[in-house]
Amino acid sequence: MKLMKPFDPLYCICESNFSLKTSKHYEGVFTQGSGYLHIRGSFEEGLEGANQNEEYMRLPANVTIEKPRHPISKWGTYVPGITGIHPLLKEEIVNLPYVLFFKLFANGNPLDMSSSRISNYQRMLDMRDGLLYREFDWEVDDNTTVKCEFTRFVSLARKNLVVQMMNFKVLKGKCELNLISGIDEKVKTNGYNHFASVAKKLTDRDCNVELVTDNNDIVLMASRTFSDTVEFKDNGSNDQVASVVLNENESISVNKLSAVMTSKDETGRLSKDTSLNPLNENTCLNFDILRQQLDDAEKKFEQLYSEHELCWNARWERSGVEIEGDDRAQLAVNFSIYHMLRAANPDNSKVAVCAKGFAGEAYFGHFFWDTEIYLMPFFIYTNPDTAKALAEFRINTLDGAKRNAEKYGYNGAKYPWESSVTGDEQCPNWQYADHEVHINADVVFGLWHYYSATEEEDFLVKAAPVFVETARYWISRVEFRSDGSINLNGVMGPDEYTCFSNNNAYTNMMVSWALKKTVEVVKHIKETNENAYSLLKITDEEIQLFNEVAQKLPVLTLDNKVILQCEGFDRFEELDFEKVWTDRKRPLGQFVSQEKCYRSKALKQADVLMLPFLFPNYLNQEELAANYDYYFKYTTHDSSLSSIVHSILCCRMGRIQDAYDLFVKSLDIDLSEDKAGAAEGIHIANCGGIWQAIVFGFAGMLPCYESGQVSFNPRLPESWKSLKFNIVYRGENYRVHVLPGKSTVERRS
Amino acid sequence: MKLMKPFDPLYCICESNFSLKTSKHYEGVFTQGSGYLHIRGSFEEGLEGANQNEEYMRLPANVTIEKPRHPISKWGTYVPGITGIHPLLKEEIVNLPYVLFFKLFANGNPLDMSSSRISNYQRMLDMRDGLLYREFDWEVDDNTTVKCEFTRFVSLARKNLVVQMMNFKVLKGKCELNLISGIDEKVKTNGYNHFASVAKKLTDRDCNVELVTDNNDIVLMASRTFSDTVEFKDNGSNDQVASVVLNENESISVNKLSAVMTSKDETGRLSKDTSLNPLNENTCLNFDILRQQLDDAEKKFEQLYSEHELCWNARWERSGVEIEGDDRAQLAVNFSIYHMLRAANPDNSKVAVCAKGFAGEAYFGHFFWDTEIYLMPFFIYTNPDTAKALAEFRINTLDGAKRNAEKYGYNGAKYPWESSVTGDEQCPNWQYADHEVHINADVVFGLWHYYSATEEEDFLVKAAPVFVETARYWISRVEFRSDGSINLNGVMGPDEYTCFSNNNAYTNMMVSWALKKTVEVVKHIKETNENAYSLLKITDEEIQLFNEVAQKLPVLTLDNKVILQCEGFDRFEELDFEKVWTDRKRPLGQFVSQEKCYRSKALKQADVLMLPFLFPNYLNQEELAANYDYYFKYTTHDSSLSSIVHSILCCRMGRIQDAYDLFVKSLDIDLSEDKAGAAEGIHIANCGGIWQAIVFGFAGMLPCYESGQVSFNPRLPESWKSLKFNIVYRGENYRVHVLPGKSTVERRS
Repeated sequence: MKLMKPFDPLYCICESNFSLKTSKHYEGVFTQGSGYLHIRGSFEEGLEGANQNEEYMRLPANVTIEKPRHPISKWGTYVPGITGIHPLLKEEIVNLPYVLFFKLFANGNPLDMSSSRISNYQRMLDMRDGLLYREFDWEVDDNTTVKCEFTRFVSLARKNLVVQMMNFKVLKGKCELNLISGIDEKVKTNGYNHFASVAKKLTDRDCNVELVTDNNDIVLMASRTFSDTVEFKDNGSNDQVASVVLNENESISVNKLSAVMTSKDETGRLSKDTSLNPLNENTCLNFDILRQQLDDAEKKFEQLYSEHELCWNARWERSGVEIEGDDRAQLAVNFSIYHMLRAANPDNSKVAVCAKGFAGEAYFGHFFWDTEIYLMPFFIYTNPDTAKALAEFRINTLDGAKRNAEKYGYNGAKYPWESSVTGDEQCPNWQYADHEVHINADVVFGLWHYYSATEEEDFLVKAAPVFVETARYWISRVEFRSDGSINLNGVMGPDEYTCFSNNNAYTNMMVSWALKKTVEVVKHIKETNENAYSLLKITDEEIQLFNEVAQKLPVLTLDNKVILQCEGFDRFEELDFEKVWTDRKRPLGQFVSQEKCYRSKALKQADVLMLPFLFPNYLNQEELAANYDYYFKYTTHDSSLSSIVHSILCCRMGRIQDAYDLFVKSLDIDLSEDKAGAAEGIHIANCGGIWQAIVFGFAGMLPCYESGQVSFNPRLPESWKSLKFNIVYRGENYRVHVLPGKSTVERRS
Repeated sequence: MKLMKPFDPLYCICESNFSLKTSKHYEGVFTQGSGYLHIRGSFEEGLEGANQNEEYMRLPANVTIEKPRHPISKWGTYVPGITGIHPLLKEEIVNLPYVLFFKLFANGNPLDMSSSRISNYQRMLDMRDGLLYREFDWEVDDNTTVKCEFTRFVSLARKNLVVQMMNFKVLKGKCELNLISGIDEKVKTNGYNHFASVAKKLTDRDCNVELVTDNNDIVLMASRTFSDTVEFKDNGSNDQVASVVLNENESISVNKLSAVMTSKDETGRLSKDTSLNPLNENTCLNFDILRQQLDDAEKKFEQLYSEHELCWNARWERSGVEIEGDDRAQLAVNFSIYHMLRAANPDNSKVAVCAKGFAGEAYFGHFFWDTEIYLMPFFIYTNPDTAKALAEFRINTLDGAKRNAEKYGYNGAKYPWESSVTGDEQCPNWQYADHEVHINADVVFGLWHYYSATEEEDFLVKAAPVFVETARYWISRVEFRSDGSINLNGVMGPDEYTCFSNNNAYTNMMVSWALKKTVEVVKHIKETNENAYSLLKITDEEIQLFNEVAQKLPVLTLDNKVILQCEGFDRFEELDFEKVWTDRKRPLGQFVSQEKCYRSKALKQADVLMLPFLFPNYLNQEELAANYDYYFKYTTHDSSLSSIVHSILCCRMGRIQDAYDLFVKSLDIDLSEDKAGAAEGIHIANCGGIWQAIVFGFAGMLPCYESGQVSFNPRLPESWKSLKFNIVYRGENYRVHVLPGKSTVERRS
């Protein structure tokens, strides 16, 4: 079996040579998923020397400059919502047993991509349907060569089902093949064991794993391996084995189906099609259900792909972007869209999308502001149901945010810098957890963005308590001084190379904005929904305070032109980048100590410039240029969240070549083999940023909260002949077609 | 056996009732030691329910507000210099096997102070000779009562020897006593196992323990238990046991000797008397030496106390302070002097005195600025040999300080905020390690203080590289701005409730001072020791830079009167202490989050006020009062380093009652049963502070670096009729006698 669709270089990521230097990177790049279940692109048979069960203590650190473990391979099998407690890293997503497990021996030799003699190697991910295909010729010995093919996908129709298809053909000689299949439960998460108990058992035809996490979640996994040619049997160690001797030109096909269910599953979440849904309100968690699922899938094996493909087709139809004249950009935006569609789950508002897109455990599966600022715009304008699930995640975690506020001694609600499934703060480093309070306004921004694009009144009623409780937090968090001024001190803005600052412009402006929106929302609800209004229990004094703080929080400027990132930023030390930053391929943070970064004019990422990025009308052209030019020279882009913001601003200033250069820089973050940036997972916020760069940047779309409607002002890169994409706005679908200097927006039925 | 000297309530700390609430506190208070070896005042038999072998992961935290483990008892046996590596806490002193171990059973019942029926309980530490005595009547059952007496000391004559004497007498009934003695190796340090290997073996008469730490140090311990009445035998589990049946009024005496040696020992360190010294240049580490030592000690058992007492007498003779009219103060200063004399080791300049005086492991055995600022003055003016060892510790760890500077990207040497034995930074919390750079000037201050009191030219030559290398650090650490100004930004001053500040006054002034002294020292050496000067490899440009930075580092003021703790301190938020700090017995830090402390006018301890404390001539009376009154109202004294500084400043301002109240507050830090403050060890810096309060405060001595000689300006508290103490200055001994308004200084032969 090969790819099911004709090969298309714009929709397929190819690895044409295997190398240990990039093996872990491609595991991230080739991550597959259904929203419910995500699996990194590791080899079915593993890699020699890559112990997946190693126990060690990962310490809290600056992830950007941390040196990760597992240099060549890290398996990852994640069900968002299944988390454990790490003694130092706090709550983290649990890496589950490896259902892909499939080992091959030829004439007694184990297949290993790093030591076996391999030729004609090729691995491809088709992003149109999430199929991963690997083929190669294995020269087992001088007299024997076997051609191996591996295909797999995580079903988007049956979101808890993994389908694997293998084919082995003897090209030369005669060969005994020994096959071992099952589930490998010997895995750890960041070196830590989150399995309170794990039991593996072979039943009649299935390998069953039952595990209880240290958070008391139950996870059941079942896999079944079958072939027309040979029978798989118990080998006594709870794996399924088969042996076959093949003569030259003979081949064997093997299929494997695996299914997962957990105690966090809810009715309707695994498939919209109730006939495919293993759970209904009356079922409990047991292997009978998984067996029935596997039975059904095996019976309908031939249609598993087509039903899966239909789901992907529907998503691409809504989400696709077509760029004529720039294949590299086309491939990269496809890659970004693929991973966003894979990572998010419209059917589950109890989780959001983690910082690594569930393609690695570097950020422990935590949820950041990435959701609201980088990811939600894509979903709001292409897949509003998914955007709604992400927005509802914040509404669902309001209680956790209240607990955070209380822990710090404040009123209301404080959304966590790194959110757990419950909304409790999970950031293991206090400097971010304590000070990066802007998240609380970012959350409100995300909710408002969704509402202003959909005008769903029911949603606004559900979201209103988030507006009010975060506003209450700000009132108790700011400092009212006796001279009548109001300050917001001791914060970290988006730039994480300034640890502790007063009156950070981004934070103050966002807080003012959020407070004003809160007043607006409360007023609107008062007028439209008396019952909902009374539940908010808001007083006139509070409204007055919201208004006062919104008006008085200062945004400081230098010479009335450049917005000061924070008090005293202009007196921060000048760093001689030329002298200290001797290798620009590595982050500045590896050359300058944190202590020095914290007091220098060195930005990890856009800070002040996040304001004109989010609010295109916030600065006029002259102001924008002044601010951009002031901060750009100090900005390291050590954070993956930075380049793309600058690209969009360059578009707005008409600096198209700069915009394009920064855009290309962003494309490389996960796709450059040289940088191997996807090793620890996908920079999913950057994926959202790439979509935004195309739509908000090059197509020049004004977001709806700024203009009350969507509008375009195209500024295409020179090489782009045309650009096409779809937009959903207030329930209507639009086709947007941008040519140099011209845009057409057409309503679709 | 009882105390060997007649009971003196001014020199004896008494515990008259045992309580689980204070049991751990008294373990700290009753710590005994010889400089070489320290043992907390735990019961020989342990305490029921106090597992000494519990494994857990202690996390880096703010120790001041941390809730410690082991609520009722924590054994501690420490040899300074024997350290292990904790994965999170960094290097820490290792808690060694418990040589005091001695269990008693009467008619089959185990002795336990928390559950046995006990009357006539009394425990006393005699601070004149470090003897710890416990007696009580144990009502074993309705028909049987046993009087128990335990006496012990760590020999100051044979510093690695522990002497225990037990006596048990049946007061009522007939009783079978079972005695178990040996060494309990089932101990952990902060919940962590630092023993790479530990082996226990009974030889002929001794229990031997050989252990290798995870730092590859070897520690040998041997103990021997003997009695005229019964023979101790092997019980098969490597302890020594004996049984005896006693009739009414019969008694039994048991003695135990224990000795320790380690791979860190050096010739001459264990005893000045070479005949008592188990090590000479040709011996290796083995149990034969320890056995010979125990043989010798057993043979001369009757003289062990007297040789030990002689050593203590000599120390007290040099160090004692006599206060007439204030028994409480007399007891407290005796307590302070006892622990300082015990904790420091004049014969070992490879270690200093740790923050808990080797009486607990809360601060992991690390060395802080406490050494230079709080402890060294006492030693400089009473035990200059010990002061020299402490000063030499910094000279010996210059290489570690250079490594620290290099790690941060600076030139020269940066002494660590929390020093290991090697001078490498061991502070597990980056906010202190990165920012509390003032330590680098504090170290120079300490060296200069020693030199100016002794004028030892050899010492200055050895110390000069510390002056120069720390100066080089400052030159690369400060910011030279294009306007010609020089700033020292991103620092934490002494006040640890301000995390990150610019131009901290204390730091800037100390750096200026240290740079000026460096220039002076270099000039002096150039003139007096050409060879030493050339080794410093210092250029004229460097000298010029030292001078320039010393002159230009700003000390900011408010209205030209109050020194600003740092830039913008006056704009920090006002905290309503009345409202938030509802229980003044607990630190403010338990009521206000770190985040809020960091941006509020809340001082953990004296910061600006450290300047007039160290330099009595720095401010005139009016300035001192203005600064004192401004900062006092914001100061929480959450740090034990604070009250005593304020007490001394009040003396200087003639506010004697305030001075006395603050002094009394400091006396309570380790001695108040109610506060139980010694549970985690002795606040040894405060011990030094108490001595300074008496000598620099009430007696009004000007330190020699300020005046070029010592002089007095007494301001005695009302109740004090007279005050007497000794001072060593430039090799001469002086007897100081202070009466209200009068001081007499007499040179002694």
